[in-house]
Formats: sequence, C-alpha cells, structure tokens
Amino acid sequence: MNKKMQWLRNQMLSLNLQGIIISNPVNIRYLTNIQAEGVLLVTRKENIFLTDGRYIEDVHNTLTLFDEIVVYDVRGLTRDDYENFFMFCENVGFEENYVTYAKYKEYMHKYKINSLVETENMIEKQRQIKDEEELESIKKACQITDECYAYILNFIKPGMTEKQIAREIDDYFYKNAEGTSFDTIVASGENSSKPHAIPSDRKIQNVDIITIDMGCRINGYCSDMTRTFFVGEVPSHVKPIYELVLKNQEQVLRDLRENSNTKQITKMVDNDFRLHNYDLVHALGHGVGLDIHEAPVLGINSENILKENMVITNEPGIYIAGQFGVRIEDTVLITKGGCETLTKSPKKYVIIK
Amino acid sequence: MNKKMQWLRNQMLSLNLQGIIISNPVNIRYLTNIQAEGVLLVTRKENIFLTDGRYIEDVHNTLTLFDEIVVYDVRGLTRDDYENFFMFCENVGFEENYVTYAKYKEYMHKYKINSLVETENMIEKQRQIKDEEELESIKKACQITDECYAYILNFIKPGMTEKQIAREIDDYFYKNAEGTSFDTIVASGENSSKPHAIPSDRKIQNVDIITIDMGCRINGYCSDMTRTFFVGEVPSHVKPIYELVLKNQEQVLRDLRENSNTKQITKMVDNDFRLHNYDLVHALGHGVGLDIHEAPVLGINSENILKENMVITNEPGIYIAGQFGVRIEDTVLITKGGCETLTKSPKKYVIIK
Repeated sequence: MNKKMQWLRNQMLSLNLQGIIISNPVNIRYLTNIQAEGVLLVTRKENIFLTDGRYIEDVHNTLTLFDEIVVYDVRGLTRDDYENFFMFCENVGFEENYVTYAKYKEYMHKYKINSLVETENMIEKQRQIKDEEELESIKKACQITDECYAYILNFIKPGMTEKQIAREIDDYFYKNAEGTSFDTIVASGENSSKPHAIPSDRKIQNVDIITIDMGCRINGYCSDMTRTFFVGEVPSHVKPIYELVLKNQEQVLRDLRENSNTKQITKMVDNDFRLHNYDLVHALGHGVGLDIHEAPVLGINSENILKENMVITNEPGIYIAGQFGVRIEDTVLITKGGCETLTKSPKKYVIIK
Repeated sequence: MNKKMQWLRNQMLSLNLQGIIISNPVNIRYLTNIQAEGVLLVTRKENIFLTDGRYIEDVHNTLTLFDEIVVYDVRGLTRDDYENFFMFCENVGFEENYVTYAKYKEYMHKYKINSLVETENMIEKQRQIKDEEELESIKKACQITDECYAYILNFIKPGMTEKQIAREIDDYFYKNAEGTSFDTIVASGENSSKPHAIPSDRKIQNVDIITIDMGCRINGYCSDMTRTFFVGEVPSHVKPIYELVLKNQEQVLRDLRENSNTKQITKMVDNDFRLHNYDLVHALGHGVGLDIHEAPVLGINSENILKENMVITNEPGIYIAGQFGVRIEDTVLITKGGCETLTKSPKKYVIIK
C-alpha cells in the first residue's frame, strides 16, 4: 500500500472509523493516482474502487499490485454486494463537504450503514502539507509560469485583444505543461477593475494597464501568479495604488512562516488598505495543490495556523470600479523560519511598448 | 421579471414553497443570466442574489431593472439579515442533488428554516425543454462543430500526435465559438478502445483508426459529436464493428420522437450488440444544454419519456480492449413526429491519406 493510503488507514484507526467512502475525485487522485469517475471504499479488509466500463481499462493501467486496490465494475454489482462492503462496520466516514444531500441519503440506503460519520475535511487538511514529490511538481509549474510571463511580455503589442493574449498563454501552458490550472485572466484598462474578469475583445491601447492572472499544471499540481503591468507609461494616478499593493504583498512575504496566523496577516493588509480608504474585497490568498483553490484560506474570517511545506498564494489587490485594478500574486512555500517565493517574476514597474 | 423566473414562481406556488434557495450556478445562469459565484434566493416578495466583492460589478452589468433581482454583497449581511430572508416561510426548497450535506446543515442554521424541502431536480427537468433562443445557440454550436470536423480532416497527417490534433480543434473552437464544451478526445489506434481517452503523444500512423469526440459552446450552450474515421484504409476486422455501430446509431435516429421511451431504445441497441457478442458499456446518450451532460439520460437503467424540444445525444460505441474502438455520436433535437440531427457530418467510411 502506498504511504498516503497507509496514512488514511492510520487516521481511520484513530477516529474509530471501520470504513470510509471517498467520493471527491481530487482526494481519490491524491490517495491512489486514479483519475476516473468512481468511488473509493476503504473497508475493514480491502481498498476498493468502484467504477464503470468507460474507465476500467485505464484504472487497471494506473494501478500496480503494490497499490492493493481491487477494481469493480458497478454493472456487475448486486444489492447484496453493496450491503456486504461495510458489514460489521460501526462507523463509516464520508465527505460531508463533497457529497450532496441526495447522495448522502443514497449511501445510507445502498450500503445499509448505521452510522455515516462526517470526516471534517480530513483528507483536504492532510493535502495542505506537501511532500517532496508534490513540491517538485509545484515548483516546476511555477518555473514554467515565470517563463511564460517573460515570453508574454515580449509577445504583447498594442492592438492585440485580451482574448488573443489569453490564448497565447494557454498555448504556452499546453505546450510546456499540462495546460492551465484555471481560466487565464487578461484584464486591461477598465476591465482590470474586475478581479475575475473574462478576457474580452478589448484591444490593448498605446498607454494601458494590464493584469494577468495565470497558472499551469505539472503532474496535476497547480501554479498561480498575477502581475499588473503597463503599456507606454505608468499613469500617475495609478502609482500610489500600485505601490500600496506591492508594499503589502512584500510585507506579507516577510511575515509568512510556520506558525503564522492567516487571520492576523490578512487583517494587517486590510487595515493598511482601509487607512488609505480602500478595501480588500477578496481573500488574501489560498492553498494551492491538486486544486487551484484548496485549504487553507487566508481571509479575515478564517483563522489558520500555517505549517511547514504548505503552499499558498499571497495576492492582495485594489480595484477602482469602472477605472482600473492592481493585483500582485505569488505562489509561496512555507518553511520553518520564513517562506520561499516559488514564482519569481519581477514585481517592480514593468512597462512594455 | 423574465419568463424563466416567472415559471419558477409558478412552480413554487403549485408546490406550496414560499421560498427557494438556488445554489447550482448553471441553474442560476439559466434563470437569470448571472455568471458569478453566489446564491439566488427567491423569497415571498423578492428575488435576491447574494455574492461578494469580486462579482458585484459584473452582476450589476448583467442585470437590468426588468430582471427585478436585488444584489447584496455578503460582507454587508448580518445574522439577522439571513434570518429575515425566509421569515414566515413554511417551506423553503433547496437543490438536494447539488447542495452538499454540510451546506444543507449550514442553510438550516443560517437562514433559520424549519422545513427545507427537496425539489427533485425541478429546474433541471425544466431545462430539458429548450426554447427558441436556446435552440438557436445549440444549432449554431453544432454547425461550428461540423465545420471544425471538415477542417480537421484536412489538417490531420500521419506523424502528428493526438495532442497536436486536439489542440488544433480547441483552437478552432476558441476562435469560432466560446471554446470547447468538454475536454476534446482524440484517440487513435489502440487508444480508441478507451471511451474516455485523454489525447496522448501517440503519433498517427499511415494506416490507423481515429475517434474524435468534440463540441463547442455558443452563449453557454453545448454541442457534442463523435466520429470514428480512418487513415489509409479500413482494416477488414474493423468493418463489421463499424457497420454494427452505424446501423444501430441510424436505427435510433428513426426511433427517436416525442414520447419515445429511452430505456426501450437503449435496450434495443444493447440487445443487438449482445447478439453479436459485444457490450454497450456506457449510456446511449444524454441531454445537452448549458451542461454538456444533463437530463435526460438514455440508459438501460433509466426510463424517460422524450418530449418535443429536448436535445439529446445518440452515441452507441463498441470497444475492443487493447485493440480499437468505434463510436458515432450526433446531437439530436426531438420533434413531435421524429427528430432532427443537428450535427450533420458524414458517417459513412471517411478515409484520409
């Protein structure tokens, strides 16, 4: 059995769970490497993956004997089979934050489970701490993101549309990685005032502001980086805001380390923004891994204590509705005494022609 | 208020619901055109969209006064505000097939609701029947898919990889539509034996079999089409299987009409495949709309009666593990007396050089 499945079995033991149903495909991939629709059952004696005809061949190709996972096609299962999986199990865990209310009821009936127990994001919490192999993938994804940024700064010319630029970034990530880790944002001029802008047909002007938020995947693991930069010149009314955002982004990097309190750090940025009559309208950051957004959240309303080998983003932003916005974001690895910025693209004023 | 929101209010009346919480973003888009994270509350007196700072500007730009939807930023809401939304509501509906078990519990507490009622895919069921505007979008998406297929047949040359071909299709859809409606499948040679193959670095051979499954979006609405075709020649051992699949696909097109029973139609194909010692390992088809897979399912285990203006796929396939596979799929509009095939690409043997 691999280390992660072994960890899961130990967890179950300590929580007095005799069985568990894993439904979240990202958790299934994390634990087993399987990328297929289906459900992972950990029973008293066996690890079982239930899937259907479309995926059987692929799943068999992914697994080795060492994995100790039995694969069943649901089409061959009887009502008795389902009821036998968790027979004599007192408590069976399930993912209450992934499983729908309807599915929860179905599990109760199908598997005849007496006590279906909430597992409180147990696997998501474990996923926060990355091992060597996971870190290697994330670092590689961040490096490719930096290279893409250098490439795209050369590529952009006034007259191009946001869509064209976004497409070029996507192409770059498709060729050099496993594609994007989320929908690329290219927001120029007044569009940059929308934190989650969708690339439009707006053309880049001779004097312009551009925010690009992008990331790619390596072995399923994500990178995430945002830069705001300029065409022609930096308008004087933008400078105080750019510098306020950058100052806070860099201060956060000095404060991040094992045992940092995410609520306090976010509060610090929020306070400084308010002092200047601006708002921090979104979270300061989030965990990054197999999901582009995962635990922990760095926000005003969520208190988390950071641990060594967590990977998070640090992305303060200020948005002036209808005018412009500035966001600067890095992917960051938490270490014992500080942090390591994994995306290394320049953050001082970048001005292209 | 728009027609769809008016329909929803009538439904609520007939189901004795005084309020409803819509959480599924696709249902929210269907009802309101809003594309943002948030939740739609239909209360006794108001239609309310709760969202956060990232989306406020965008949502305001989408809505008009005619929509009669009030938008709130959740950051400004107090505990009392939440409790007031559904005050004096006896029954409040929720989407039990979308809302997680944890969210269900949160809704109960946050909104102080006595009776949170399952709504049994009420909106998904309504979404099955497309109106004129929706049909126009789907037809356009299908037309662009046909054009892409014609283009890609000319583009493919032996020596190219599956990934290269998939990327070219994606580019085509990005330029001529709103991008793909799902991850494009290009599966050649033995890879075609996997119904859900991921494009690989395998190079197209001088004599080869290729299955392409692809679709795009127009105004959010999807198309879906699969073709299996050949490079150089059609191997003689493939012919009987290709013809068996095609025969069944065409027979289904003759049987589809208002009041067809999806279980019976699927059974017919399954029986014919079994007669020849093959299996129908996946569903025969599925609804297509704002989601690429939506109701109804055309499968052995689900009995649905088709209605006029439903849009579904018809996609029988046979897969010989480790060797090859054949799937032929059209997007089809159900009419009173029959059906209209919206994807019109040729299905007879296509052989490229």
